[in-house]
Amino acid sequence: QCDLTGWWKNDLGSKMQVYDVDDQGNFSGEYYTAVSSAQKPIKPSPLVGSQHLDDDGQCTFGFTVNWKKFSDSTAVFVGQCFAGDGDEEVLQTSWLLREKVDSLSHDWKATR
Amino acid sequence: QCDLTGWWKNDLGSKMQVYDVDDQGNFSGEYYTAVSSAQKPIKPSPLVGSQHLDDDGQCTFGFTVNWKKFSDSTAVFVGQCFAGDGDEEVLQTSWLLREKVDSLSHDWKATR
Amino acid sequence: QCDLTGWWKNDLGSKMQVYDVDDQGNFSGEYYTAVSSAQKPIKPSPLVGSQHLDDDGQCTFGFTVNWKKFSDSTAVFVGQCFAGDGDEEVLQTSWLLREKVDSLSHDWKATR
Amino acid sequence: QCDLTGWWKNDLGSKMQVYDVDDQGNFSGEYYTAVSSAQKPIKPSPLVGSQHLDDDGQCTFGFTVNWKKFSDSTAVFVGQCFAGDGDEEVLQTSWLLREKVDSLSHDWKATR
Repeated sequence: QCDLTGWWKNDLGSKMQVYDVDDQGNFSGEYYTAVSSAQKPIKPSPLVGSQHLDDDGQCTFGFTVNWKKFSDSTAVFVGQCFAGDGDEEVLQTSWLLREKVDSLSHDWKATR
Repeated sequence: QCDLTGWWKNDLGSKMQVYDVDDQGNFSGEYYTAVSSAQKPIKPSPLVGSQHLDDDGQCTFGFTVNWKKFSDSTAVFVGQCFAGDGDEEVLQTSWLLREKVDSLSHDWKATR
Repeated sequence: QCDLTGWWKNDLGSKMQVYDVDDQGNFSGEYYTAVSSAQKPIKPSPLVGSQHLDDDGQCTFGFTVNWKKFSDSTAVFVGQCFAGDGDEEVLQTSWLLREKVDSLSHDWKATR
Repeated sequence: QCDLTGWWKNDLGSKMQVYDVDDQGNFSGEYYTAVSSAQKPIKPSPLVGSQHLDDDGQCTFGFTVNWKKFSDSTAVFVGQCFAGDGDEEVLQTSWLLREKVDSLSHDWKATR
C-alpha cells in the first residue's frame, strides 16, 4: 500500500517530511525547498494534504505548501506513487506556484 | 482580511464550503463539483488546504480535493482572494487534476 | 467550418490578426498583447501556427508568438473554436509563457 | 548560437526533425511521437514554430504539432536551448495537449 509517511526528495534537491497519514488519508508535514523566487532566505514550510488509501500501492495524492515564513506565495502539488526498483517508491508530481499580485489585472501572470 | 470560511461557487457551477480556518491558516471543507470525468455519480468530496493570513485581504491559498468517493483522482487548486465590487470577495484559482494511471509509462497523460 | 483568418480579441484586451490559412492548416499573423512582464514597451509580435480543417467548425489549433521585438520570451497558445451566439465564433485557449533563464538550475521557474 | 535544425529526441522516446530555420526564426518539421492517447495508429505529424535568434545560444522557442493524421488534437511546446556537456545542446520544454471536445461545457477537461 502506498504510504506517504516519511522523507522524500526530488530532482531539484528539495526534501519533504510527511507525518502520519490519518484514516481519512489526510496528512501534514514540512517542506524544505531547494529553490525559491523570493527575496528572503528559505525556511522549512508547513504542508497539508490528502491521499487515496488504495490497496494497490499506486495512490494519487495532493498537498499545499504555505510559504508564509519567507514569502506571500502558495504552492500545490498533485501526483501519484509508483513502485520503483526493489522496495523503493517513486512519486511523480506536477505543481503550480501562486505568487501574490497587486490587483486582478495582474492575475494572468501570477501562476507558474 | 481575507477569510475563506463559508460558501463559494465558480463559473462551472461547482460549489465549496470551507469550514473554520485555524490560526495557522489551515482549513478543511467539502467540494461539490459540477463537472467530472469519472464514470460514477458525483458526490461531495473532502478538501484540506492552507491560506496566508494577510492583513490586506488579498491572501494566496491552496487546497487539495480527494475524489475518493467516486474516483481514483485528486485535484489541487491554488489562487488568491481579491476584493470585488462592494463587499464581495472573488477567488482566482488555477487547478491540476491528477488521474490514476496504470504505470509510469502513462504518467505523461495523467495530469490536466 | 472553423476559419481562424481575421481579427480576434481576448478578455485581457489583447488582439490578434490571423492571415490566410493555407490548405495544410498553417497560418501566420500578428499578436497585439495588452499585457507583458517585460521591461521594454510592447510591440506587435509575429505568430505562426496550425489548425485542423474540420467540417464541423470546432477545430483545435495552436500557435507560437515570438516576442523578440521587446523580450527574450516565447508564448504558445492551444485551443478550440466553438460556435457562439448567432454567427459568432469563440476561441477557448490555454497558454504557456516561457521566459529565458540564465542556466538549467533556474529552469523550474521559467514557464508560467 | 542556438540552432534547432536537425534531430531531437526526448525522455519518452519521441523524436522530431526540424528543417531549416529562416532568418525570422520560423521553422517547420516533423514530430514522431512515442506516446498517444488517440485510438488510431500514430503517424509522423507536421510541426511549425518559431525561435529567437540569440547570440548566446540559449534561445527560447515554441512550436505547434498538428496531429491531424490520426486525431483531432493539437499540441504546443515551449522551451529553451541549453548548452549541455561537450558540444551537446539540451532542450527543456513544457507542453499542452488540446483534445477536441463536443461543447463548451466540456472545455474544462480538454487540455492536459
